[in-house]
Amino acid sequence: MKALVYDEDLKLVKDYPNPVLGENEVLIKTIMVGICNTDYEITQGYMGYKGVIGHEFVGRVVDVGCKVDKNLINKRVVGEINCACEECDMCHKNLQRHCPNRSTLGIYKKNGCFSEYFTLPWQNVIEISSNVDDITATFTEPLAAAMEILEQVHIKPDSKVAILGDGKLGLCISLVFSAMNINYIHIGKHKEKLQITKDLGNKVMMLDEISEKDKKSFDVVIEATGSMGGFNTSASLVKPRGILVLKSTIAAKEGLNLAGIVVDEITILGSRCGQFKPVLEILEKQKINVKPLVSAVYNVDDFEEAFKKNSQKNVIKVLVKF
Amino acid sequence: MKALVYDEDLKLVKDYPNPVLGENEVLIKTIMVGICNTDYEITQGYMGYKGVIGHEFVGRVVDVGCKVDKNLINKRVVGEINCACEECDMCHKNLQRHCPNRSTLGIYKKNGCFSEYFTLPWQNVIEISSNVDDITATFTEPLAAAMEILEQVHIKPDSKVAILGDGKLGLCISLVFSAMNINYIHIGKHKEKLQITKDLGNKVMMLDEISEKDKKSFDVVIEATGSMGGFNTSASLVKPRGILVLKSTIAAKEGLNLAGIVVDEITILGSRCGQFKPVLEILEKQKINVKPLVSAVYNVDDFEEAFKKNSQKNVIKVLVKF
Repeated sequence: MKALVYDEDLKLVKDYPNPVLGENEVLIKTIMVGICNTDYEITQGYMGYKGVIGHEFVGRVVDVGCKVDKNLINKRVVGEINCACEECDMCHKNLQRHCPNRSTLGIYKKNGCFSEYFTLPWQNVIEISSNVDDITATFTEPLAAAMEILEQVHIKPDSKVAILGDGKLGLCISLVFSAMNINYIHIGKHKEKLQITKDLGNKVMMLDEISEKDKKSFDVVIEATGSMGGFNTSASLVKPRGILVLKSTIAAKEGLNLAGIVVDEITILGSRCGQFKPVLEILEKQKINVKPLVSAVYNVDDFEEAFKKNSQKNVIKVLVKF
Repeated sequence: MKALVYDEDLKLVKDYPNPVLGENEVLIKTIMVGICNTDYEITQGYMGYKGVIGHEFVGRVVDVGCKVDKNLINKRVVGEINCACEECDMCHKNLQRHCPNRSTLGIYKKNGCFSEYFTLPWQNVIEISSNVDDITATFTEPLAAAMEILEQVHIKPDSKVAILGDGKLGLCISLVFSAMNINYIHIGKHKEKLQITKDLGNKVMMLDEISEKDKKSFDVVIEATGSMGGFNTSASLVKPRGILVLKSTIAAKEGLNLAGIVVDEITILGSRCGQFKPVLEILEKQKINVKPLVSAVYNVDDFEEAFKKNSQKNVIKVLVKF
């Protein structure tokens, strides 16, 4: 089968071996895949991962393992990306995405969805309603990562909230917060990307418009830039006793000063993957329109073009059809 | 009056001008002062502070401003170190220690208590019971900083808790946690300091005894070393979705990687000064014995000796009598 494989470089392998279906797994034929920043980071050495990349998808179940309900066959599904042991403390607390024995689709010890076929444990897949189209369904994973913030933080009706960063992640958070009618301001560097937030009726601000009066004024700040500068700006915006949500992994190359975090007793909250069900409910109600985020859709044979496009300025989400 | 002044270097000034008493302030004659690591950090440039240092004290009120109740005169008192405006949002929320207009005794815009006399707003001082001796009373401020953790974090009866660091701060936290009957393990580098925790019937571990099974196993870890290495060790001990309390300001000189914080969705909680009342109640009940932490008591004329002693290995708390 065709598969997009990272091993020193990224290449489309035409005759990659078909996956072996486990007894508790389903075999999925890929319909559409989204390119995530993590895919790019893997090509830069993240997690030391080698194998088929990709973890944002919609697909169709074409076969099931011997221990799996055959009714799943033919269902159009999305799937949670952390494959858990279901036996440890974390799994027993329904925190499978923190299972210490987990593998993660296309990121850690598990071939990803950038291939014609791939497998997932049956517990991970969720059938999607026919009124959620393929493009929208492909956004389930990043939207769930955005929704995770609301599982972790109690954002009150009068909380003063800022999202910093107008890339894929920041915009997905903006879509979710807008759908949840959270009152927030979206801060970024790109006028045309912030326009998506503005078109939804929400407040926006350019990074260079931040003034002294904005400093230490927000109850909750979502850091979605993944940069040191973004971290420092986010930290400067949080009120004493406020919350700074870290949505993307930052490796500080220069000195990072946490003194202000202690003095102002700020809470830094790491936030990663989220649950799919609450997002799918909103998508089924047609309360989120992901289309303004779609910059291009490519055929898998043009993957090089797709990744080139993905790295261009002003591009948001690039999708790949199988 | 005699005052210990930092201005490029630390010196005992014999004829420092007496403080001017504000209309809402009390004038305090110093009885005893504790040397804190922050005092040392000020001599290294912390906060750019210049003036009389010192913020841990017990003293006696000898005069009051024209707007202050005269009954305070002659009372033996301790005092909260943040002097607030009492007019802003933070003050209205009873978070005076986060008042953006605050000055801080001996740390920021307010001469400290390392002098024969100093002033504080009357709201800051609390009379202490005669059954709390001078040495014990001088520990109120650092014990309140330790107690602050319990205001911020819900430590449950079955929470697995570690304190990292066996310096002044770590030991004060240990005393408070022990008094509150919290089940914890105290991890440090100094056997004889950890012995204080052990003598209270609590578990201890040497830093080099940390094993793989301890990693990611604690619900709550208190970082009280103030070092990069301590931060990284603390982070490695926290369970996914656990809490890392930062009790001391860390400036990372080398790269600090927050990726693990995001992946494991760890909460980092900055924690600084605490309220005095809950600590004084415990001290009045004689439930905390600070004496094992006292390494030496000096007369103010021997301040150079006192600071030299304070910088020695195996020394915990050095006190100075006026």
